[in-house]
Amino acid sequence: MAHTLAGRAETPTQAKVLKLLRDEGPFSRVQLADRLGVSRTTMASEVNRLTELGLAEGAGPAASRGGRRSTLVDLSSDLRFVGIDIGATSISVAVTDGRLAVLGDRQHVDMDVRLGPEHVLGAALELTRKLLAEHRIDRPSGVGVGVPGPVDFHSGVPVSPPIMPGWDGYPVRDAVARELGCPALLDNDVNLMALGEEHSGVAKSVPSFLFVKIGTGIGCGIVIGGELYRGVDGCAGDIGHIRVEEFGPTCACGNSGCLEAYFGGSALARDAMAAVRGGRSPALAALLEEKGELSAEDVALAVAQGDAHAVQIIRDGGHRVGWVLASLVSFFNPGLIVIGGRVARLGHPLLAEIRGVVYRRSLPLATGNLPVVLSEMGDDAGVVGAAAMISEAVYAAA
Amino acid sequence: MAHTLAGRAETPTQAKVLKLLRDEGPFSRVQLADRLGVSRTTMASEVNRLTELGLAEGAGPAASRGGRRSTLVDLSSDLRFVGIDIGATSISVAVTDGRLAVLGDRQHVDMDVRLGPEHVLGAALELTRKLLAEHRIDRPSGVGVGVPGPVDFHSGVPVSPPIMPGWDGYPVRDAVARELGCPALLDNDVNLMALGEEHSGVAKSVPSFLFVKIGTGIGCGIVIGGELYRGVDGCAGDIGHIRVEEFGPTCACGNSGCLEAYFGGSALARDAMAAVRGGRSPALAALLEEKGELSAEDVALAVAQGDAHAVQIIRDGGHRVGWVLASLVSFFNPGLIVIGGRVARLGHPLLAEIRGVVYRRSLPLATGNLPVVLSEMGDDAGVVGAAAMISEAVYAAA
Repeated sequence: MAHTLAGRAETPTQAKVLKLLRDEGPFSRVQLADRLGVSRTTMASEVNRLTELGLAEGAGPAASRGGRRSTLVDLSSDLRFVGIDIGATSISVAVTDGRLAVLGDRQHVDMDVRLGPEHVLGAALELTRKLLAEHRIDRPSGVGVGVPGPVDFHSGVPVSPPIMPGWDGYPVRDAVARELGCPALLDNDVNLMALGEEHSGVAKSVPSFLFVKIGTGIGCGIVIGGELYRGVDGCAGDIGHIRVEEFGPTCACGNSGCLEAYFGGSALARDAMAAVRGGRSPALAALLEEKGELSAEDVALAVAQGDAHAVQIIRDGGHRVGWVLASLVSFFNPGLIVIGGRVARLGHPLLAEIRGVVYRRSLPLATGNLPVVLSEMGDDAGVVGAAAMISEAVYAAA
Repeated sequence: MAHTLAGRAETPTQAKVLKLLRDEGPFSRVQLADRLGVSRTTMASEVNRLTELGLAEGAGPAASRGGRRSTLVDLSSDLRFVGIDIGATSISVAVTDGRLAVLGDRQHVDMDVRLGPEHVLGAALELTRKLLAEHRIDRPSGVGVGVPGPVDFHSGVPVSPPIMPGWDGYPVRDAVARELGCPALLDNDVNLMALGEEHSGVAKSVPSFLFVKIGTGIGCGIVIGGELYRGVDGCAGDIGHIRVEEFGPTCACGNSGCLEAYFGGSALARDAMAAVRGGRSPALAALLEEKGELSAEDVALAVAQGDAHAVQIIRDGGHRVGWVLASLVSFFNPGLIVIGGRVARLGHPLLAEIRGVVYRRSLPLATGNLPVVLSEMGDDAGVVGAAAMISEAVYAAA
């Protein structure tokens, strides 16, 4: 069966129905009317319209409660969203159903984002078309795209992204929409990972939380009352360039002492090389001997082997991340902090250090009920979040 | 005429009407119906109900547009709100009309908040009753109260406030409501100053901004989309205890290196004394000779006299405030930063230093359109904000 593009919700009630079906599953018309506080007549006509638009469909009889047997309403089984997660060194693509469940396997290729938009988007679209063909989808209902840098959400373009040369102002959203013939939205990868956690991860049902990505870059997604907070210019959450020390190492952004200059991917590689040169880490020395170069992943490998100096590198980094997060907890008083991204896979030594600083340095009132946890979504957070972003737009009243 | 307690809005439409009348002045019923997108019949009955509730009243004929002459609707001229601003060293009280204009003069007494809730609230209520009698008000429509420490907004009590011994858990809101016989709400003074700026100050019509108070303590009010953001536990904005240096001076909160331990009121007094002892400030030495002690105000006086070391104290403090604000700009991407509070009266040397650091240290995208300005409301921000808080509740649908 060839899936085709569906319409968009036309009224606030239709939008609420679609989000309720996405987040809580099929309901009868009567249940929908009760849940949303509208008359049964109104609900019946709204559901009919959603069916005409290709967004909803019948889903078998509801459990009988006496009287006339009613039919369950569900999201259309034809709905297909695409999530494209462009990272600094790879591209991931997934297809989801209307409820944001990933269909089949997420596709993944290594790709250096510095190769520029034509090359990287070309590869992302090729991967997407392959996946659409496998799932026999002509045109998806919408596609969400994430990139590892600041984005002007309203115009759908990257804005002066430090690690993405050639992408500044490139019309990524419109190019993807045109190529795939469906609605598209662009945001930065960290915001999308936060949305992924909100829909399918540990932040599910937590209305206000911070998602902190520690990978090649360090960034933060902010969710307030179930909505992504993007800031006035769309660049909220840029915590990688918060100063940690006044006279620290120079950062790619041109300033010095930024958090990312201490604990981003290239900072870890730099510290790993320094450890080998100083003769302080047998495990890292062996890895360098074997591979010819060292990356953040090698620090993780050395930590897994119990290398004391590698553990110290992670503790120092976790300590600095903790200072920054303690400031944000004092300022923002979130309900949950989720740590994700590649470096976060270092797991408990890192988490323990971050927690220690956050709990010691923040106002007791703000940390009394504040869990600080690791993401459990791995590489799925970005693609699921990208699909979630476009589903919000398709399910919202135009 | 004795003013009496009015009712509260009963429907979302009534609430919208009241806020529109408060913020933009009298309208005809037809204009109100058009502005809020409801039928004229519905609006007529909603306005009648607001009049019955004592919240709205007729306000003379509208300009004729042909056809039947219509009547303007305005807020009831009987509406009276009280704003009580309890600071670390003083109490201010004002009475406003329904549009939050201060009637007559704001009343002010010196009062040490450390004398405890019975004593301080007793003085605040005495001042309030005197003002109500002057304005011939039996019972105000509502009273807002601000205190200089963290507040559990939902239960209306201070929570472990560092500079308010004896106030922890004291039922301030309920005590004030009982004594004055009207609805009351309690929040921290900084949040209320932010509301004051939003309604009557430089932040008017700016939907998302930060208000930074620099006084005895240092705190931040966060407004997002026209609403105060209080955080999950109601303690968002506690920026005075953000770490500036790992091994800095000990703070009243028990940690070290907090912003407030460098630039709060007692930190400035400490630095002023040290300057005199070190023979570095003739102006501060003369002030100490004259008064027997030194406070933050004396640093301001010495700056006004052009004392070089006093200026340096302010520059150093402004530099540290700037570092913290740069972090918050990177994280939060606000549309405006307003600096208020006593120390902020130091004016341009302080502002210049703060601006320098914020503009240099934040992402260019976040500061391209970011004004950093001084408050122009002086001591009115707290009382107007307190009145604004309770007006929001009275004007909101129950």
